[in-house]
Amino acid sequence: ISWEEQDNSLVLLDQSALPFETVFVKVRTPEEVAYAIKTMKVRGAPAIGITAAYGMITAILKSSSLEEAMGSLFKAKSVLDSSRPTAVNLSWATSHMLSLSKKLVEEGKVRRVEELLAELKAEARRIFDQELEAELQMGIYGLEKIDEGDTVLTQCNAGGLATGTGVGTALAPVKVAHALGIKVSVIAPETRPWLQGSRLTVYELMKEGIPVKLITDTAVGLVMFKGMVNSVMVGADRILSDGHVYNKIGTFKEAVIAKELGIPFYVLAPVTTFDLKNKVEDIRIEERDPNEVRTVRGVPIAPEGVEVYNPVFDVTPPKYVTAIITERGVIYPPFERNVRKTVGR
Amino acid sequence: ISWEEQDNSLVLLDQSALPFETVFVKVRTPEEVAYAIKTMKVRGAPAIGITAAYGMITAILKSSSLEEAMGSLFKAKSVLDSSRPTAVNLSWATSHMLSLSKKLVEEGKVRRVEELLAELKAEARRIFDQELEAELQMGIYGLEKIDEGDTVLTQCNAGGLATGTGVGTALAPVKVAHALGIKVSVIAPETRPWLQGSRLTVYELMKEGIPVKLITDTAVGLVMFKGMVNSVMVGADRILSDGHVYNKIGTFKEAVIAKELGIPFYVLAPVTTFDLKNKVEDIRIEERDPNEVRTVRGVPIAPEGVEVYNPVFDVTPPKYVTAIITERGVIYPPFERNVRKTVGR
Repeated sequence: ISWEEQDNSLVLLDQSALPFETVFVKVRTPEEVAYAIKTMKVRGAPAIGITAAYGMITAILKSSSLEEAMGSLFKAKSVLDSSRPTAVNLSWATSHMLSLSKKLVEEGKVRRVEELLAELKAEARRIFDQELEAELQMGIYGLEKIDEGDTVLTQCNAGGLATGTGVGTALAPVKVAHALGIKVSVIAPETRPWLQGSRLTVYELMKEGIPVKLITDTAVGLVMFKGMVNSVMVGADRILSDGHVYNKIGTFKEAVIAKELGIPFYVLAPVTTFDLKNKVEDIRIEERDPNEVRTVRGVPIAPEGVEVYNPVFDVTPPKYVTAIITERGVIYPPFERNVRKTVGR
Repeated sequence: ISWEEQDNSLVLLDQSALPFETVFVKVRTPEEVAYAIKTMKVRGAPAIGITAAYGMITAILKSSSLEEAMGSLFKAKSVLDSSRPTAVNLSWATSHMLSLSKKLVEEGKVRRVEELLAELKAEARRIFDQELEAELQMGIYGLEKIDEGDTVLTQCNAGGLATGTGVGTALAPVKVAHALGIKVSVIAPETRPWLQGSRLTVYELMKEGIPVKLITDTAVGLVMFKGMVNSVMVGADRILSDGHVYNKIGTFKEAVIAKELGIPFYVLAPVTTFDLKNKVEDIRIEERDPNEVRTVRGVPIAPEGVEVYNPVFDVTPPKYVTAIITERGVIYPPFERNVRKTVGR
């Protein structure tokens, strides 16, 4: 995720093409940004947040007045927010950019569109920097959960691709450990339907020289049962104040099995992932196109027209979560009390 | 699975090509039969058993004396047994055919190879008929676990394709219920790496007009969590006397989650699936080619050369099993006592 000053465009690495092709796409309008998020060229809650922040900037590139710019920002927020409903970072970023703009305009701190543009660019950059810093901090807090020789089971890709920074959330402790010369390896389930595990996590870790083993999603239980896993570390798309964790479909099963077998289950996420307002019953779980299940990379794997249920997130109740690791520290149960204490508001 | 009298060959429906192509292969030697089993043209524990029984017959097609025939049968057993190590039906069928042959020869009941051939053909047919009868009986016993409107979660394909009879083990109660006009539907996880769920279970049920919904293996937890599942019904490749169940990779996770959420977990298998001799520590879990995980239908889904762990079965400890449904009745815990009572020996 980088901003191209020369032609005022946002350059995105197309994650849907990895690891087979390295394609960069340029987007210049909120609609194009929303489309890139919807089609999962950009994915991963933090990366979506950063992209959405830049997406807000594209809304005012052609504005001729601050009034027009504010209108465009308002519209852009709704376009962007609707692209992926579950990730909280998305609406956090768009809200943040919109309210900052309002404030700057109302307080007279910017008088021309160019000034607003410059401020928003700096702010998007700041969001990126904060994310990277938060991830390194999570990596350091998470390090205390990793012993020499450990194997960490993850899910999906909550690495540097998911966040746009190269570090990641769930994988941050592994990366920090590896950088410090601590021997650590990862088991990555392929994570159907989008195969973020086999396409992205494996690719990212192999590139960095961190030992990784690929398994099917069906083998998640056996690797834990056989004692091949020391801890489970996953990211999150949304965490409620009582500790309910929304993350990639398949996370719940890892949590239940980990608890049953006495393996610690850690969720790693920056404080921007917390949603202290909503309750479980308020959250709609995104369902995507049935063809994502009927095919793999365009190849059919099931009879045509088969009925499909394709939810892309699941919810893990707090009783299965050993701890939530944030950049402000590790949150232990009871989450109902301790989440607010750490995340505040 | 059918025997072609005209040219003395075994005709097999190639399950690895379904549902995209309907291909029949003819096999005429134990090596060819073993290869068909190894490459999963034939799969499913009972279907493998029936195929192996016929495979033994192919060993003596060219024998010129009973002595030679016995030698060929002995060799054929070892060729066939090594094709898939986990399924108990395979070695059960080959042992049965071999010891029957010994008995017939020693007691002078057959005097020529042609007579032995005729007896073995009749025996293989009997194994097939007994399997079909057993499945219908399991379907009837399993019916008491199905209520009008129920949805059954399964795993892999333990239907009529897995057994060669058109009925199946895990799916037998669903089929009997459907035949009796009881409304019942199935949720089928795709079951990577071989996709028996999306390729076979879905295909078989759609063909028979039984409502079926396809999900990814990652969604298994969520469908149970959301209350979409009334019971789990799976087949088995091997069941130990203490109730440990070996079945398709991914079964264990369904069992753990079902228990955690209070959903009954049933294993359906004919008594030939029981292994009353071995203990958990004696059973090796088959691992297959890493390329099965690195690709889907020949299309790469991961970076080349990624390290893979590809076990194809897992083991579910007895505490997660609500009951085992056999053709001789329903076995409830404590299995240590009740399995021997029902399965005897």
